[in-house]
Amino acid sequence: MDAIILSIGSELALGETIDTNSAWLAQRLAEIGVGVLRHVTVGDDIEPIRRQIEQACGEADVVLITGGLGPTADDLTRQALAAAMGVELVLRPEWVEKIRSFFACRGRSMPQANAIQAQFPAGSKPIENTCGTAPGIRASLGRSMVFAMPGVPREMREMFERDVRPMLAERTGGAVLIATVLNCFGAGESDIGQQIDDLMQRGRNPTVGTTAKQGVIGVRIHSRGRSAAEARKLLEATEQEVRRRLGTLIYGRDSETLSDAVARLLVEGGKTVSVAESCTGGLIAKRLTDVPGSSRYFRAGLVTYANEAKTLWLGVPADLIAGHGAVSEPVARAMAEACRRLNATDYAIGVTGIAGPEGGTADKPVGLVFISLADAAGCRVTRHLFGDFLNRGEIRERAASTAMNLLRLRLMARGGQACSA
Amino acid sequence: MDAIILSIGSELALGETIDTNSAWLAQRLAEIGVGVLRHVTVGDDIEPIRRQIEQACGEADVVLITGGLGPTADDLTRQALAAAMGVELVLRPEWVEKIRSFFACRGRSMPQANAIQAQFPAGSKPIENTCGTAPGIRASLGRSMVFAMPGVPREMREMFERDVRPMLAERTGGAVLIATVLNCFGAGESDIGQQIDDLMQRGRNPTVGTTAKQGVIGVRIHSRGRSAAEARKLLEATEQEVRRRLGTLIYGRDSETLSDAVARLLVEGGKTVSVAESCTGGLIAKRLTDVPGSSRYFRAGLVTYANEAKTLWLGVPADLIAGHGAVSEPVARAMAEACRRLNATDYAIGVTGIAGPEGGTADKPVGLVFISLADAAGCRVTRHLFGDFLNRGEIRERAASTAMNLLRLRLMARGGQACSA
Repeated sequence: MDAIILSIGSELALGETIDTNSAWLAQRLAEIGVGVLRHVTVGDDIEPIRRQIEQACGEADVVLITGGLGPTADDLTRQALAAAMGVELVLRPEWVEKIRSFFACRGRSMPQANAIQAQFPAGSKPIENTCGTAPGIRASLGRSMVFAMPGVPREMREMFERDVRPMLAERTGGAVLIATVLNCFGAGESDIGQQIDDLMQRGRNPTVGTTAKQGVIGVRIHSRGRSAAEARKLLEATEQEVRRRLGTLIYGRDSETLSDAVARLLVEGGKTVSVAESCTGGLIAKRLTDVPGSSRYFRAGLVTYANEAKTLWLGVPADLIAGHGAVSEPVARAMAEACRRLNATDYAIGVTGIAGPEGGTADKPVGLVFISLADAAGCRVTRHLFGDFLNRGEIRERAASTAMNLLRLRLMARGGQACSA
Repeated sequence: MDAIILSIGSELALGETIDTNSAWLAQRLAEIGVGVLRHVTVGDDIEPIRRQIEQACGEADVVLITGGLGPTADDLTRQALAAAMGVELVLRPEWVEKIRSFFACRGRSMPQANAIQAQFPAGSKPIENTCGTAPGIRASLGRSMVFAMPGVPREMREMFERDVRPMLAERTGGAVLIATVLNCFGAGESDIGQQIDDLMQRGRNPTVGTTAKQGVIGVRIHSRGRSAAEARKLLEATEQEVRRRLGTLIYGRDSETLSDAVARLLVEGGKTVSVAESCTGGLIAKRLTDVPGSSRYFRAGLVTYANEAKTLWLGVPADLIAGHGAVSEPVARAMAEACRRLNATDYAIGVTGIAGPEGGTADKPVGLVFISLADAAGCRVTRHLFGDFLNRGEIRERAASTAMNLLRLRLMARGGQACSA
């Protein structure tokens, strides 16, 4: 079975509101083995809506429509659906009463405008809305089952879960699509793509694809099977193969973040961490405390932004800063070492760099960042260039992610030896 | 002129990633008077992509495509466009060199896979990508100008603003829609809506609407005119009226953030700031350093997450913490006062609270946050409850925004008197 999702609303077509309904529905459909051919967004105009409904009903087994069921003049989904079906809208008095009692429960009388929400295309069936006034509509057209639902996400989701999903699941007869994403950091999309090139060929099941965002490469695996067990078995085999090839580039799956991965390793090892930051300005401390329960491993962060703050709080000698510059290997080293010693933590991260847009020189361009990582074995400093084409915010995010990833790799290596940059 | 926007990517069609490109492009098109007929999202399959391109080119003056220009096997936009145009892909050696030098600038050699990004449909023109490896493609098909751009939002936006927008604006002639957003903090959406209720009536020009995100209420104003000057004049009159009613609730317009507003006020007043954070874990320091040139006003941040860190770094007496709890008015006060004194700054913020999900009690529930603000006149502590329905991340963001807003209001009041909570 496959589906087309139509979103109705000028606020969506004009880009003033971002459509999240279609993505949510696509995920729910995938869970019950229904593929999505496309999403289409159109504004509040009856003809384009009718045309999209007709076209979709010629192609897909299921057409899901959201939006355009409100009580105002710009809500035109029910009219467009009736036109596509070639039937009239029919008032159902018992649904006027339902809507009236929805208002009454809230101590209000029903505005006359809402009566239109009790009109349905002849031959269609209403779907109850327990969270709002707009009933949904269920109809048949061409080869398709059509479900029109409200655009308000909460109402739509409730209606889908309660009524639409069971009706669809009944018809899919077992076929299932399941998905997972393996999140990677430390290599580019094409490097990673090359290592799993053969798995990404079209026509394979599971399918494998990559996405890139803020330096994080997601390897998506989609598996189809006649049963959940079959789909899962296929997925696991491909996942194992991807893991075998990419190794420690993979830090987590699905919604797992670098922060989650680092937190898990710190808690498992019973280790503590502190951080001394300059250019990232608190972002690494924020990442380390994103995770519930972070007080088990995170002690303190020192955002020594001004040079004097590096001296005041971490005792970095003023002449070291004067001699090498605040953005230098020795200063990064001194930051992590002092941070670890003063906070008495197992690990300490130090970061100093030039986030820009000003402050770069030929020697030390915008994007130059030194990251130091101190532990019982010593302190290692690495030099990074994040500058080309990343803006200030992106350089800071990339530097923070790189620092988190270095800590993750160190924690995975356990007691691995430290060496100088 | 009208346009159709196509988004390519299985991660979008499957709902794993929410498409923000189409909404962004629709807004930009509106600004230059180009209407949007529809957005369509399709997965990484060559035939459906080709079909959507052909259909769109039969209907719209402009077809904008995002995504599917990457170097991997699942990137099929260039092949689909060539198929729709009925031409071959042609390798352009000079573009291989451009891509190679993009890698070389970063000290890397070009993976062979990226060479495909230098292939273009015969008769089309490349569009330079200054932020990534994938050039865009400009072509004519049917009655349409077609622009294919990368899916990575940053690359797409840069390419659109630099090359695509000017080409389109040239053709649209006079009719203009311009927009602005006034960003507010410190009141709810319905409170703000009530104050500008009459301006939000339908049919007005300019139109006024509100959006809410993370406690920030955006008041959107859209103005139409036969010329930019006319549209701007109408917009300015409405903006003035909204500003008159909402006063200091408004902290900025368009992309201006609370950080920008605070930075501007600090720089204007020649003032400095430091911060002592517990539950926000570095987020306020990060916000204060988001803005280029923040070293002019930001000295240091102390993320005293563990109780011992509050004592070690800020000298908060251990018995004060034991007596009142770390999340308390006296501890918040001690944090800001010590932070200001030790860093010798004009202002200091202190924050201590319970971000959850664990750690709440009946007396001190999740979401309880004390925010202190110290200056020459003393220290004021305010108590906030962010708990209901916000998760850990949202509570932290809301606490940070509230602290930034308190500092903004204090800076605007200039030398206003401090008093105790």
